Amino acid sequence: MSKKIERSYIREILDATNKETISFAGGLPDENLFPMDSLKKASSKVLEDTLCMQYSKSQGIDELREKIANLYTKNLDFPTTKDEIMITTGSQQAFDIISKTFLEDEVLVQTPTYIGALSAFKVLGLKVKGFNYIGSLNYELKSSSGLYIMSDFANPNAKTLDNNHRDEFVHILNKKNSFLIEDGAYSLLDFEGKINKPICARYKKSFHLGSFSKIIAPGLRVGWIRADKNLLERILVSKEALDLHTPTLNQMIINQFLEDNDLFNHLKKIRSNYKDKMEFMSVCFEKYMPSFQFSKPEGGMFIYGSFEEDSFLLAKEMLKKNIAFVPAEVFFHDNKKSKEARFNFTNSSKEDIEKGIKEISKTIIDKSESIWFKMFKERLPFL
Amino acid sequence: MSKKIERSYIREILDATNKETISFAGGLPDENLFPMDSLKKASSKVLEDTLCMQYSKSQGIDELREKIANLYTKNLDFPTTKDEIMITTGSQQAFDIISKTFLEDEVLVQTPTYIGALSAFKVLGLKVKGFNYIGSLNYELKSSSGLYIMSDFANPNAKTLDNNHRDEFVHILNKKNSFLIEDGAYSLLDFEGKINKPICARYKKSFHLGSFSKIIAPGLRVGWIRADKNLLERILVSKEALDLHTPTLNQMIINQFLEDNDLFNHLKKIRSNYKDKMEFMSVCFEKYMPSFQFSKPEGGMFIYGSFEEDSFLLAKEMLKKNIAFVPAEVFFHDNKKSKEARFNFTNSSKEDIEKGIKEISKTIIDKSESIWFKMFKERLPFL
Repeated sequence: MSKKIERSYIREILDATNKETISFAGGLPDENLFPMDSLKKASSKVLEDTLCMQYSKSQGIDELREKIANLYTKNLDFPTTKDEIMITTGSQQAFDIISKTFLEDEVLVQTPTYIGALSAFKVLGLKVKGFNYIGSLNYELKSSSGLYIMSDFANPNAKTLDNNHRDEFVHILNKKNSFLIEDGAYSLLDFEGKINKPICARYKKSFHLGSFSKIIAPGLRVGWIRADKNLLERILVSKEALDLHTPTLNQMIINQFLEDNDLFNHLKKIRSNYKDKMEFMSVCFEKYMPSFQFSKPEGGMFIYGSFEEDSFLLAKEMLKKNIAFVPAEVFFHDNKKSKEARFNFTNSSKEDIEKGIKEISKTIIDKSESIWFKMFKERLPFL
Repeated sequence: MSKKIERSYIREILDATNKETISFAGGLPDENLFPMDSLKKASSKVLEDTLCMQYSKSQGIDELREKIANLYTKNLDFPTTKDEIMITTGSQQAFDIISKTFLEDEVLVQTPTYIGALSAFKVLGLKVKGFNYIGSLNYELKSSSGLYIMSDFANPNAKTLDNNHRDEFVHILNKKNSFLIEDGAYSLLDFEGKINKPICARYKKSFHLGSFSKIIAPGLRVGWIRADKNLLERILVSKEALDLHTPTLNQMIINQFLEDNDLFNHLKKIRSNYKDKMEFMSVCFEKYMPSFQFSKPEGGMFIYGSFEEDSFLLAKEMLKKNIAFVPAEVFFHDNKKSKEARFNFTNSSKEDIEKGIKEISKTIIDKSESIWFKMFKERLPFL
């Protein structure tokens, strides 16, 4: 077991921010879009049943697993029964319990990738290797390896795998027989409502991770794993050793919410709001910081792009000015230097988005001017 | 990492029980004693603040940590600040995050001990060794070892360490400089309301675990670790890699409950009810099953005693008849054969307690009669 893991820089940023901070750093949904009225009603109903406060099954409550299974069958083109679903305390927890049970020594990840997955693997002492193109997996993967991918609106770069890439993954996985962990945290956040079939639907030795954090509310910490029944049975012991079970109350609130509301109606609201915010942030970048190179995402919660300078140093400097964003360095398993950065557009007002980007732009211009001035001064004696 | 851990037998029992089962198996509190009205009021208040549904700090929300720190300072004779408290998703989670960060290879445990701790250590591949008397720790403990103890109303045997034993632990720990994990899950459940000073209060390299599961409600899954600030800082990365943070909503509900109610008033109700149930179960044992040897506990949730036969086989047989209790074998790190068993008295009605014990007694008598009958039949030819 590895004992010296550094804290997640993102969590450090979150801890460092205060009410004055304009933060593009976290992967925080817009709390104004939480369905509070429905959640209050769901909570009231649930609290009529004393058992919402009692211990419950490690795999999760039946009714909620049934509903998640239906979501796979009806909306993700991936036939699923409730025995193939396990509820987790946030989808974050899935990394730990899957790795503990199945991964012997290494896991292959996209570059860049989700920092929370990197931490979870590293805390368990797993060797984390990055791959830049899919073909390289032909040489890198072993049957005992784990392969971690985000197919839709990946964190941090908002990329979605096209069909050819998905085919290629399936092809290689079938040859190599590795463990696939596919993270669907953002899969329902396509701005146009399109839903892709998970790669897991075409490969058995796999775990598909889902979460209510981005589509209902993260403060409830309810996620899930979708896997074959015999795989789930084997990770149940890790789950129960970890927290016995995910809080009963939270599972029942989500279950009641899904019982009484149309999730996809709620999603429409989120998607149109997020699309609008993304467009606004894009315009701000183009207007105030044309040197920042990025492609507009088609879903998810982030704009990912590249500065003309080291983004880590810039991020540190901006944090002192109470503006937070995440330099890409932290999303690389080997912390390689990068000019890239991730901006969250869902958790700030338009006013703050404009103000924040203007301020970053101003800092960059001031710095480059001071460099010119320095060069000018240095040359003075010779003039 | 160890990959082949068997499922907790207790969780299997819990999963196997149905509405007809009379269960003395789980460590379930009586749900009739959950302070539902106060919890409903607390939830309603909390749900007025959208942030109860948002991500929050890995260490836990400040207000709740402050209140727990006060509990230590005022009631446990153990001066504590909020920086020395970390909220966990159930106190169960503490085993995982402490072990991952600090324990290299082995942990010493009481025999018998809490099965959830055994699972958590084993899942991480730690070597678990039992000790029968404290003095043996002089030879067994190393500075890298973990020592796990329950000082008050231990699960499963309901024993509390007296002052001499506590002194002995402190003395040896100071010599050996090992990591102490002291589990206080039942510490506030003394039938007379007595509270002992934790051993951790006299030894720095230590983690004291607490939980709201037995004193408010387990379905919320809110527990905590009390440790020196520099130790907590080092486990923060494991906590955030595990589930980012304990559900915000649940922390805020507990915090609001503690704000608006006197916890010790509520505890009085629990303690007198549990004492009454314990006395009733004791009388049933004495009346229907005088061969079952036990001492009446002074707190906690269990009666622990010894049959005249293998308790594992008996438990299996009773489960078929829809009566569940836990044979002691599962509480030993090495699963040694045992005639002992644990009975929970908090989660059954008096009617069910009497019915269940009568039924076990009947089974034992029937079996012994059938053995006599068999012996008698076998001797017939010679008569």
